[in-house]
Amino acid sequence: MENSMRKKVERFIDGLQDEIVTALEQLDPDAPKFKRDAWIRASGGRGLSCVFACTPEAGQTSSMLQTKLEKAGVNVSVVHGILPPAAIKEMRADHSSLPYDENTSLPFFAAGISLVVHPRSPFEPTVHANYRYFEITEQATEGEQMGKIVAWWFGGGSDLTPSYLDEEDARHFHKTLKDACQNDELYSAFKKWCDEYFYNPHRQESRGIGGLFFDDLSNEKHSRISEEVKRPREPEEIFVFLSRLGSAFIPSYIPLLQKKRGIHTDHHRRWQLLRRGRYVEFNLVYDRGTKFGLKTPSARIESILMSLPETARWEYMSELGTEPGSEEEKMVRVLKNPPSWV
Amino acid sequence: MENSMRKKVERFIDGLQDEIVTALEQLDPDAPKFKRDAWIRASGGRGLSCVFACTPEAGQTSSMLQTKLEKAGVNVSVVHGILPPAAIKEMRADHSSLPYDENTSLPFFAAGISLVVHPRSPFEPTVHANYRYFEITEQATEGEQMGKIVAWWFGGGSDLTPSYLDEEDARHFHKTLKDACQNDELYSAFKKWCDEYFYNPHRQESRGIGGLFFDDLSNEKHSRISEEVKRPREPEEIFVFLSRLGSAFIPSYIPLLQKKRGIHTDHHRRWQLLRRGRYVEFNLVYDRGTKFGLKTPSARIESILMSLPETARWEYMSELGTEPGSEEEKMVRVLKNPPSWV
Repeated sequence: MENSMRKKVERFIDGLQDEIVTALEQLDPDAPKFKRDAWIRASGGRGLSCVFACTPEAGQTSSMLQTKLEKAGVNVSVVHGILPPAAIKEMRADHSSLPYDENTSLPFFAAGISLVVHPRSPFEPTVHANYRYFEITEQATEGEQMGKIVAWWFGGGSDLTPSYLDEEDARHFHKTLKDACQNDELYSAFKKWCDEYFYNPHRQESRGIGGLFFDDLSNEKHSRISEEVKRPREPEEIFVFLSRLGSAFIPSYIPLLQKKRGIHTDHHRRWQLLRRGRYVEFNLVYDRGTKFGLKTPSARIESILMSLPETARWEYMSELGTEPGSEEEKMVRVLKNPPSWV
Repeated sequence: MENSMRKKVERFIDGLQDEIVTALEQLDPDAPKFKRDAWIRASGGRGLSCVFACTPEAGQTSSMLQTKLEKAGVNVSVVHGILPPAAIKEMRADHSSLPYDENTSLPFFAAGISLVVHPRSPFEPTVHANYRYFEITEQATEGEQMGKIVAWWFGGGSDLTPSYLDEEDARHFHKTLKDACQNDELYSAFKKWCDEYFYNPHRQESRGIGGLFFDDLSNEKHSRISEEVKRPREPEEIFVFLSRLGSAFIPSYIPLLQKKRGIHTDHHRRWQLLRRGRYVEFNLVYDRGTKFGLKTPSARIESILMSLPETARWEYMSELGTEPGSEEEKMVRVLKNPPSWV
């Protein structure tokens, strides 16, 4: 029997990637197209990195570039390989169905889409989204194409990081995701998880204004969702849930890039770059995917660090963000105290 | 009895800080002065952060600023407090004299100078240096000012990070440090340690062209120095060794900022900012001091992250540094294969 979920997820994320890249390209027809970079992993799997960048040519400075986006990456990866016993052991906390034996490695399959968009205007928010499916099987016996599935789960989410707060944007983004959940309790649980996950403890502030974050969604007991909460549990149901969220990306974000915004000055740009510094801090210090990638010798470092902004800035004891009543301080206040948006 | 080593180290680093800041200020008399920021730690201790920054004013862009330095920090901190049992346990690997008991915390004292200088020109190298003294004592008994010293050690080093390789600079920097060591075997051991420490494994390259790095220097057996190597072992001897290295900072680095350099273009600046991105990656992902600071709830985050450059840049699959024979590729080759400079 063909493993239909693997195929389904792969088809879905390939299609979604194409739609998102097309939507972003249509926003700014005069800009260079995304660079499409297909790759094959020697140890098993494939991927497609779609990347937007616009490097200044000789004699040009960055500030002369006028594209809508500054840097963006929309990646798909579909990989398989072998999980060492230590990795399996760690996963057992959330997947009790996993058999563990200190001498046994198990085959895994992982398929996901991951994207980050950094617009050029300080008034337009950065966005991040990621949706993924993970499967662990027994070793295939002779004559089998693949072994029996011993654990599987879905994860993902999407979150927004503005430099300047636009409450209308925040409400639109959250509402679109909430509607796609079709389940208010799950929206609340995953909104809270998102606020907790995208948090810089050393700055005592969130990375952005949140969205959704979840992991380990399967038919097993979930450590963060009470058993009373109704939720999709079968693979097919969760896939439908995830597909709705994935498909909500375009309506959640693209309208924010179509809005008429004010003209920004060097002051606004400076604040945006300081905020991008915080983005870098989160990604390099705390983000699980990045940390895991940096530790994996065979990982594709360019794909892992694609989420970093083109430029970031650090100032010692910057006064920006501290002046009461300023737009910058208004943003910081929300990052220190995430409100409920819908 | 007064603990004279504490006082000596404090006096030395205070004086060195003043000399270094003065030397940097004299290089560029028209630039704003360093900001001197004295602080007191509620839980014990004091510090002085001397910081150079030159933030663009309204209507100015960063590229209009003409100061010699772009960002610099020269910090002194002299702190004391209590080490929890877990921290003591970790330190025992290198300090077998430490008594350990899972219920006993011990007083510590730490004094150090730490500095980073990021010049504006892509042809002038970034430098980092740090010298420190650490002491652990027994709890003071009644009537005692402080308990008996149960472990003490010195650590430090200095390293150079150019964007473009100038072999003469590299030789001058290393030779000055080697001469200050007055011990070729120690220079070799600490040069090697430096190349190993300031390394970005995910990029498979060094952060810069090295210098010296050492830690845990005391009268105990040292895990990285063979017992046959003659080395300073008594507190007074090691203090003299450390002082020579500290005092070598100015002659090792200041002449590099006084050299006549070529005129740089946007191309050179772009490469410098990409290299600064790698600097940020090392500091946030691997640097022990930064990692420790980020995890310490009461730490002064502005001082810890002062080492980050003002601006950094990330490009996906940048062609810079890969073109055979280019100046950028020449730099990368050295970072992938640290030579012996003297």
